[in-house]
Amino acid sequence: MKQMMIKSASTSYPIYLGKDLLINLDQYIDPTYSSILVITDQTVATYYLDKVIKALKQFPVNQVVIEPGEQSKSIESFYDIHTRAISFGMDRHSLIIALGGGVVGDLAGFIAATFMRGIDFIQVPTTILAHDSSVGGKVAINHHLGKNLIGHFYAPKAVIYDVSTLHTLNTREIRSGYAEIIKEALIWDEAFFNDLLLTNIYQTDDQTRVNHLYHGMRIKANVVQKDEKEQDIRRYLNLGHTLAHALEQQLGYGQLTHGEAVAIGLLFALYVSEDVYQNKHAYQPLLGWLKKHDYPLTIPETNVNELIKRMKTDKKVVNRHIQMVLLKSIGQPVIKSFTDREVRDFVTLFLADLEKGIYT
Amino acid sequence: MKQMMIKSASTSYPIYLGKDLLINLDQYIDPTYSSILVITDQTVATYYLDKVIKALKQFPVNQVVIEPGEQSKSIESFYDIHTRAISFGMDRHSLIIALGGGVVGDLAGFIAATFMRGIDFIQVPTTILAHDSSVGGKVAINHHLGKNLIGHFYAPKAVIYDVSTLHTLNTREIRSGYAEIIKEALIWDEAFFNDLLLTNIYQTDDQTRVNHLYHGMRIKANVVQKDEKEQDIRRYLNLGHTLAHALEQQLGYGQLTHGEAVAIGLLFALYVSEDVYQNKHAYQPLLGWLKKHDYPLTIPETNVNELIKRMKTDKKVVNRHIQMVLLKSIGQPVIKSFTDREVRDFVTLFLADLEKGIYT
Repeated sequence: MKQMMIKSASTSYPIYLGKDLLINLDQYIDPTYSSILVITDQTVATYYLDKVIKALKQFPVNQVVIEPGEQSKSIESFYDIHTRAISFGMDRHSLIIALGGGVVGDLAGFIAATFMRGIDFIQVPTTILAHDSSVGGKVAINHHLGKNLIGHFYAPKAVIYDVSTLHTLNTREIRSGYAEIIKEALIWDEAFFNDLLLTNIYQTDDQTRVNHLYHGMRIKANVVQKDEKEQDIRRYLNLGHTLAHALEQQLGYGQLTHGEAVAIGLLFALYVSEDVYQNKHAYQPLLGWLKKHDYPLTIPETNVNELIKRMKTDKKVVNRHIQMVLLKSIGQPVIKSFTDREVRDFVTLFLADLEKGIYT
Repeated sequence: MKQMMIKSASTSYPIYLGKDLLINLDQYIDPTYSSILVITDQTVATYYLDKVIKALKQFPVNQVVIEPGEQSKSIESFYDIHTRAISFGMDRHSLIIALGGGVVGDLAGFIAATFMRGIDFIQVPTTILAHDSSVGGKVAINHHLGKNLIGHFYAPKAVIYDVSTLHTLNTREIRSGYAEIIKEALIWDEAFFNDLLLTNIYQTDDQTRVNHLYHGMRIKANVVQKDEKEQDIRRYLNLGHTLAHALEQQLGYGQLTHGEAVAIGLLFALYVSEDVYQNKHAYQPLLGWLKKHDYPLTIPETNVNELIKRMKTDKKVVNRHIQMVLLKSIGQPVIKSFTDREVRDFVTLFLADLEKGIYT
């Protein structure tokens, strides 16, 4: 088992990364909690809920099983789970466990942050994508006008990452998760990026996957430790995300997974970066790699003005200008401000090129 | 003008307390905010909104005016104000100003805590009651199963308290506010309590009122500085509040103001304290003082079991036992755990005695 500590100005918590952690979950949990609420989704529940409940038999345990997918990060399910938590008799000494991927972690974490003004929670990720979302304390629900617009920074007490759960992921979930690992490599570590370009992510052994996850989480940890509240370098982790969030919303959540949208967003960031900084390093190799792994790269016909409008309700907007993370080179991210018109031109050209299969 | 700093583990912020601060509001606000949203209610808006908007003319300013009263601290208005804030084009560098009493402060503060994962806000209290709620960073909305159950600890950047606004308060609002000042005196300062017992709160001059507010806020500041997250001595500030919250809810918000409910809750806490600790200091003098000031002390016929059930969904419950703040003597609060049956017996006797006008 690998272990690391996340330390920031306001908090510190451990990450445990290894095999078969779920069956001994109680070993990582303070026995004095008055009760535990496990929040998970239907897919994860089928595989792992019984195992988790069994491991927690020394506690009074309740469970809430949500529908899988972004639509569960709504104000309605937020309120509904609060109702249930109150009805279960939970108090300020209760614990919430987020068992699942990013949706479960974001929603359960935001409920923990707001239940009776904040109770403890533990992230138990079961997807590759959640290696990213489970670290750093970002929790949120969606607003109908934008993704993750209602939320908070609220760190978990621990992240307990049982990589054995990754065996039940399908190819779509694997590629969704690896998009965030690619992102971490792009902003921080060129050697890691080149290593990933040589990897077939559908045929990695457990040890390689653990190494990739560990490396990605290490990068994330380095960033969020220095800037917990996203006032400075943490913004680099948004590489590819402004377009990604707008696409996810515009196409309807579920059309593209978060990671698939991020993959397109990363390509776009490289497309703009190569134009702005006249470097030609990463766009083409990444495009080739994404194609090899069957990432969806053609987007259904899309209203670009609508897309720009969505990009402008993003949290990264400052004084109504869209802020994009670009790369001067791999490992050298910068923030650049663009007018609507500039972004519109880039998006239009980018989508047209993708459509035509033109490799710039 | 009086000034004090609130310093706690995670934050520090100033309180300005004086006359005619609203007209110079801009002097207390960082000029680099990208925009400001003023949240207030219809009553306060009539008197002070124009003045505030005028004082902020150097900023892009938007406003949201809610209905006065607890019913506005709902999940619906929470979401609706988020929608409007997004539509106004607010970003992470925007500021929220809570102009009003406790309801406005709690709601606006919780929106600030959750808008794009948290933006700055400033408390501008306009009631006596809000001298309490504006300090200490408690923000929340109500759940239909309990008051303030969804919220967070989120400190304002400043509290700007213009006591000139208190001239427009009616007698009901004055007595509501003084209940919290009485509470602060009871948990901390016997001399202050005795001083208040000699005061006619409807006939105090500005200077006396400022002194009472300053003294109350000083007590609150002392407590929250030592225990921001209510894990220890901050719980003493809940004196009278477990019954008060249950009563407010059971009778329907608006029947009793928060402070009127707190006054009854304080009496109840003294009633139980005198029984448990066999001291006879405060119940009777407080009862006399409350009667003299026309606090409503007879409660419409009430289902006691229902009341106990509500007290049990309070945030102060631990392992399903009701935690009551009692006073060993004035200035010496303690927390004591009670079973349902014990609380039921006390509540029944207390209400019967109040009804009969028996002074124990």
